Amino acid sequence: MDTDIINNIKSLGIDMITNAKSGHPGIVLSAAPILYTLYANHLNINTSDKNWYNRDRFIMSAGHGSALLYATLFMSGYNISLEDLKQFRKIGSKTPGHPELNITPGVECTTGPLGQGIATAVGIALGEKILSNNYKCPSGKSLFNFKTYVLVGDGDLMEGISYEACSFAGSMNLKNLIILYDSNNMSLDGSTTYTFKEDVRKRFKSFGFKTYLIKNGNDLKKLNFILNLAKRSSKPVFIEIKTKLGNGSLLENTNSVHGKPLTNDDIIQLKQKLKVPTDLFYVNDNSKSYMQNKIANRVNKVYTESVDTYKEYVDKVLNGNKNRINYLFNNNIQANILNFNWQLKDKQALRDTNQYILKTILDNIPIVIGGSADLGSSTMTYIKELEDLTSHNLKGKNIWFGVREQAMGAILNGLALVNFHPYGSTFLSFSDYVKPSIRMSALMNLPVTYIFTHDSISIGSDGPTHQPVEQLLMLRSLPNLDVFRPADANETIGSYKTILEKGEGPSAILLGRNTVPILEETKVNEVEKGGYIALDTNKKPDGIVISSGEELHQVLEVAKRLKTKGIEIRVVSMPNLGRFLKQSDEYIENILPVEVRKIVVEAGSSYSWNKLIFNQKYLITLDTFGTSGKCSDVYKKYGFDAASLEEKIEELLK
Amino acid sequence: MDTDIINNIKSLGIDMITNAKSGHPGIVLSAAPILYTLYANHLNINTSDKNWYNRDRFIMSAGHGSALLYATLFMSGYNISLEDLKQFRKIGSKTPGHPELNITPGVECTTGPLGQGIATAVGIALGEKILSNNYKCPSGKSLFNFKTYVLVGDGDLMEGISYEACSFAGSMNLKNLIILYDSNNMSLDGSTTYTFKEDVRKRFKSFGFKTYLIKNGNDLKKLNFILNLAKRSSKPVFIEIKTKLGNGSLLENTNSVHGKPLTNDDIIQLKQKLKVPTDLFYVNDNSKSYMQNKIANRVNKVYTESVDTYKEYVDKVLNGNKNRINYLFNNNIQANILNFNWQLKDKQALRDTNQYILKTILDNIPIVIGGSADLGSSTMTYIKELEDLTSHNLKGKNIWFGVREQAMGAILNGLALVNFHPYGSTFLSFSDYVKPSIRMSALMNLPVTYIFTHDSISIGSDGPTHQPVEQLLMLRSLPNLDVFRPADANETIGSYKTILEKGEGPSAILLGRNTVPILEETKVNEVEKGGYIALDTNKKPDGIVISSGEELHQVLEVAKRLKTKGIEIRVVSMPNLGRFLKQSDEYIENILPVEVRKIVVEAGSSYSWNKLIFNQKYLITLDTFGTSGKCSDVYKKYGFDAASLEEKIEELLK
Repeated sequence: MDTDIINNIKSLGIDMITNAKSGHPGIVLSAAPILYTLYANHLNINTSDKNWYNRDRFIMSAGHGSALLYATLFMSGYNISLEDLKQFRKIGSKTPGHPELNITPGVECTTGPLGQGIATAVGIALGEKILSNNYKCPSGKSLFNFKTYVLVGDGDLMEGISYEACSFAGSMNLKNLIILYDSNNMSLDGSTTYTFKEDVRKRFKSFGFKTYLIKNGNDLKKLNFILNLAKRSSKPVFIEIKTKLGNGSLLENTNSVHGKPLTNDDIIQLKQKLKVPTDLFYVNDNSKSYMQNKIANRVNKVYTESVDTYKEYVDKVLNGNKNRINYLFNNNIQANILNFNWQLKDKQALRDTNQYILKTILDNIPIVIGGSADLGSSTMTYIKELEDLTSHNLKGKNIWFGVREQAMGAILNGLALVNFHPYGSTFLSFSDYVKPSIRMSALMNLPVTYIFTHDSISIGSDGPTHQPVEQLLMLRSLPNLDVFRPADANETIGSYKTILEKGEGPSAILLGRNTVPILEETKVNEVEKGGYIALDTNKKPDGIVISSGEELHQVLEVAKRLKTKGIEIRVVSMPNLGRFLKQSDEYIENILPVEVRKIVVEAGSSYSWNKLIFNQKYLITLDTFGTSGKCSDVYKKYGFDAASLEEKIEELLK
Repeated sequence: MDTDIINNIKSLGIDMITNAKSGHPGIVLSAAPILYTLYANHLNINTSDKNWYNRDRFIMSAGHGSALLYATLFMSGYNISLEDLKQFRKIGSKTPGHPELNITPGVECTTGPLGQGIATAVGIALGEKILSNNYKCPSGKSLFNFKTYVLVGDGDLMEGISYEACSFAGSMNLKNLIILYDSNNMSLDGSTTYTFKEDVRKRFKSFGFKTYLIKNGNDLKKLNFILNLAKRSSKPVFIEIKTKLGNGSLLENTNSVHGKPLTNDDIIQLKQKLKVPTDLFYVNDNSKSYMQNKIANRVNKVYTESVDTYKEYVDKVLNGNKNRINYLFNNNIQANILNFNWQLKDKQALRDTNQYILKTILDNIPIVIGGSADLGSSTMTYIKELEDLTSHNLKGKNIWFGVREQAMGAILNGLALVNFHPYGSTFLSFSDYVKPSIRMSALMNLPVTYIFTHDSISIGSDGPTHQPVEQLLMLRSLPNLDVFRPADANETIGSYKTILEKGEGPSAILLGRNTVPILEETKVNEVEKGGYIALDTNKKPDGIVISSGEELHQVLEVAKRLKTKGIEIRVVSMPNLGRFLKQSDEYIENILPVEVRKIVVEAGSSYSWNKLIFNQKYLITLDTFGTSGKCSDVYKKYGFDAASLEEKIEELLK
């Protein structure tokens, strides 16, 4: 029966690809036995309660294996119809080209860009470890004790992010993580003989994993045996499973079977081998029932226990008050914790302000957690009053990601997938390394906060490699990312309030490096609108200067100086351009009336600002790389010191 | 004497940091013995011929060790004065905060973002292997036989790009690469105990490296012994050298010594230990002469041999005609090879056109070489008529980077640093992974060509993870990157002509996935101007539509349809927005006269276009993620099919 079901999964996957005229048959045929074994015999899931908080997670890191995943989910009894499978890769379907979160029941993560899935899985496993430790009943039972399984291919393992994440998983000893490696020495372009000679199991051993080899990926008995060992491992587990890409196809073991539909002849001979009728979308209903029952019978007891544990937790730990745990399941966070009196120094670097705010949030909201890619003592996101999160201390709040910006992003996504509201920090210049994972946060609409400090050329002497110029625009133009560039403590608080109030979707907070005063002109509650009048004139303004971040300080100084010369300037602070552009026409016109000349001052790409200002000459922005030197010298060189700005603005308004 | 010089290098490095009030003392004190040993006893360099083509290369991957590097270069006799050291980290100096190419004699590569240096070094080593194999005299001697040395710290080795690049180096068996690991279990945030538990030597063994351990980084005898072994290795070499961060400082072995100047007290006690006078910028002239002579005496013979080999090569291989080798040393490439009759099919995907052009270039210019991050059979940059470059075939032209986008970028930079004009390809969506290395290409002004195919939502069924939306703007806004988005074969040829003619600086060519005809309206020679009139009207146009890439085809169709309705439209093709914006006001006004309404059609971020068009309603662009579906359905959903465009444009021009 097992083989029948596997073969039916294979034929369904192949039919989906044939019908869509697009897809990846290779992995369907190589990895179907792995997915079947996992779902039928190991994964603790409940297809009628797909969001069961303590379910095992399976991540298809090789996201091009979507047809295989959907066929398996269908056979497992998720709410996916045969019609859904027929709509594979079609617009608006439940079965898109690569797995997408919130579209297909049973899909736990959007995958496709290789390496992201495995790194996100590491984040999920980390999340489980923390949750498991922190939500225990008096009986010792925990609300959480699930495993995270992930299927990877050669491509995933060549990606740098997979090394970063797995080295982290080893350092944190995430024994709840089980990686299944569909190992067939074949990637899109051909055999991996040229490209990937490394001893992969040795590599995972060097990370601190327990490793296994299964020489024949069709050996279900061995698969079950090793998976049972893996579940009891005291280390993270890596299982190399030797398979044949496109097993059974005429193109078996060639790269041609990776990413294109099979020919008709090939399908006919394949289905004969598989002993499956040749009709498209054939389903053996007995097989489907058998698989569903197998899962239900196996998981029933675990699921009931989980329900009991939840009851015990609510009764004994929360004294019946479910509210105290609701945020863990509903993403329901209140922002009013930020409504107290701030005791900030008159003048400080915003990363210090940020630290103070972060600590307040961490003290109040248990599901907020985060860390830095080894720049915490410079980005100041390391909260020294709180404990470190380590393999030995899961109560800690400070995550040590190591110098692993990419993996940090994906791990944050994983944490968000198990309902944390995580944050991570590095220098803005290195947001380049995080971008691929931020894109995944945005695609999945996860409540991840990216804290990027050392914004702009004002960092000075570290030079152009460390001076972000184009990154601000890169982040602003990323769909669904909310980008804040506060000028001072007020606006930094306003940024966090806005983030906590919306409660969903990713955000980035960009902070300058230098010490700045708290401005009288800035307003906490205006940040959510994106831009507002910081300094106005009594008469009709001679000009409006729009600015953000550290540059706002110079602009305000200039405005005050010019006033003494009789030039009256309205200063508009724009901590969040994206939000401002979404305000009503009336609001925008009120802040930036058409008939007044407008100037922008921002040490970043001019592309950001043409939506507000057409004439290039009114843009005091930066479209070249910076240079190494003292901040004041660098500012002067590029015309961002107050004196240069005053001269330029005066000239422009003549 | 050795120790005296090392101590003088240390004291100079510390003085530079003290004087600059900024820098990284930790690595100066831990790694000075390594750098001294390398320069004094091993590196084949000629300080009076710093660009000697066959010099050994040293890359300071831990770029924050700039003070150590500059002090060592100074003592080695490069054209760096004591005054230059005093200007460390100051604006306009020869000694910027992190090493920068073309600023400091002896600096081979811009470094700073961790991991980039080591990955670039892999590219340099690969380049040497190819050159060494391809430029041989009849006597068997090669023009090239240099080694590439690279110093890395814990941070470098945690970065994903370093795994990617080293796994590649192992697969290519780059035995000319010697990695020196300054191993002190300490990174910026503290001990690596939490974050980096991996067995690093085992990891490098898994990649195919020969590994060594030196337990005491101050043991010069051992250092020399192992380096001598390393130079004879038949595999790439990884040497772990145990050091103490900030060796000798009061903060020795703590993260506090990593990135901040030492206190006065600390400096005084340190200089006592080092037996160096306490005066700032003390130099023992005897030490300096000794070190310079040591290098000169050792290298003299090798250098003379190299000069002889060059003569032999010119005489015997080139028959005295130096021109045939000049491009190898002068970056002098002629673009006229692209002036022949193209035999292109009427209709083909631009990636196929691109392949045809690439092959022509490869057939004519020996220093062009490239490959793909395992998408060559999909980006079509794999040239099947040419051989594969493998560890056993160094004549090959097709590089197999594996699924390693990040490392590919850095390796291309390394190849460019040894005078190749390399190219690399992947899907545009994954340009996100390459961005950090493209930034390095741009900072170093290297002639690297990035080929990004599968542009925009038109790729269809692979879905939003594979559909680039914001990447086009990300590339356009990167300073010093020349971004081409050709619409058809003519413009693709024009893009390559422009790239070959300029001969320097990085470029990106973005190609759609779908089959397109060669347009009558496009012009090869207009591409260099960035934008031009593709289709004009006889009378004053009713409107101008600007477009690029695949969308130009729909726009031309729409223009023709609208003409039958009496609406006359000028179509402007804009394959390179950045170049167009640099044209004279007259040129721009001629193409886009102020008084005519203008509309943009491009399936990418609207931020790109506000420089030309202020009113948002005239932008038919895309600021959200795409969706999985057939190309035609996706186009329709987002309004980029000809019918939707026609309706929209007609409405806008009413």
